[in-house]
Formats: sequence, C-alpha cells, structure tokens
Amino acid sequence: MSTPTLDKIGAELRRGIVQVAALSLLRERMHGYQLVKVLADAGIETEEGTLYPLLRRLETQGLLTSQWDTGGARPRKYYLLSEEGKTALPVLESIWRGINRSVNSILATDLASLASEAGQ
Amino acid sequence: MSTPTLDKIGAELRRGIVQVAALSLLRERMHGYQLVKVLADAGIETEEGTLYPLLRRLETQGLLTSQWDTGGARPRKYYLLSEEGKTALPVLESIWRGINRSVNSILATDLASLASEAGQ
Repeated sequence: MSTPTLDKIGAELRRGIVQVAALSLLRERMHGYQLVKVLADAGIETEEGTLYPLLRRLETQGLLTSQWDTGGARPRKYYLLSEEGKTALPVLESIWRGINRSVNSILATDLASLASEAGQ
Repeated sequence: MSTPTLDKIGAELRRGIVQVAALSLLRERMHGYQLVKVLADAGIETEEGTLYPLLRRLETQGLLTSQWDTGGARPRKYYLLSEEGKTALPVLESIWRGINRSVNSILATDLASLASEAGQ
C-alpha cells in the first residue's frame, strides 16, 4: 500500500474542505496562524504554506476582508468574513451538506443494485 | 455574490471527494460512463472530462485495475478496485469520516470560545 498515494488523495480531500472550514471559522476575526491552530485542534491539519495562499485568494474573491494590526509585538494580518462571504457561507454549507450525504450514502451502499440500475 | 467563485470552491470540494466516492463504487466493476451516471444519481455531478483522467490516475497509482470489453456494440473500458485499492479504501473512508466530523463540528461551533482558546 503506497502511503504517498493516500497522502495525496487525503490532501486533495482537505484542500476544498479547508476553504469551507476557514470561511466558517472566520465569522470570528482571526490571524492566519491562529486559524492554522484552530483548524488543527478541530482535526484538520493544514500547512501555513497551503492556508495562506488560500486566504489571499478568498480575499481576492471578495469573501474575506483583512486588516493589519500593528499594535502588538509584531504586525499581524487579521481576516474576517466579508458581507459577500456572509452571503456565500450558507450556500457553501449547503453544497457541503449535499456532498456529505452523497458520499455517506455511497460508502454505505449495496453496489450491485446501483450498477444494474445504471445499465451496462 | 459571485457565482463563479462559489462554483470554483464547489468544484474543488468535489474533486477530492469524487476520488473516494469512485473507489468505493468500483468495489463493483463499472465502465466510466456508468460511473458518471451512478455518481450523478447519488448527487455528485461530475464531467466525464474530469472523471476519466482521475480514473486513469487511480489506475496508475495501483488502486484500480481496468479491462477492455470488446464483446458489445462498442469497446468499453471497465474499472474495478485492485487488491491494493481494497486495502486503501478503508483508510480513505476513515480519513473522510475524520474530515467530515471536523467540518460538521466547525460549522456548528460557537466561535468566540475557539478563538480565545487559540490565543491572540
């Protein structure tokens, strides 16, 4: 069993999901590293090198806003869900719940019946 | 609200998930187009142009085997989970269930407590 193969499929699974999880968490203002820790605590291990480009992209797409806080020991960039992001989040949640139901039903399915329904 | 943005995030969500769903469905021998239909019936819409390269990649990775059937009106390539794929599937299912729990708990979370636990 090739572990790099499983790691790769696992990484691809997480890539899409991290975006939904990050948007949901950023209903509350957080800086990037804080978000990495919260995601890890929740069981979604993400590299900073993976997450930060995703956050910048979500900002470019208008779903997040950001703000530098220079009041502390070092400057930190905080992210927060934008108004547009607040509209998008329930739509993404609903996409997620649909996929979720689909995959769980596939994993639990008796396949013989499905294959014959779809025809040969 | 930008629909192309949501479509893109939705597509990335599906990309990883389709691989797990396809491997699970291919416990039963199916040809590619049949798999597209079964996935669509289960609520996971996938383009043939997206799925077929994924199937070839999963075969290259050793998780699927394939076989041409030339007995019908036209030749069809059938896919089936390999022995290696049978070992990988429960691992991927467990990765999936972990991510699933994590995302569902994030979507349901009271965020104020999480953010303060992770520190500023």
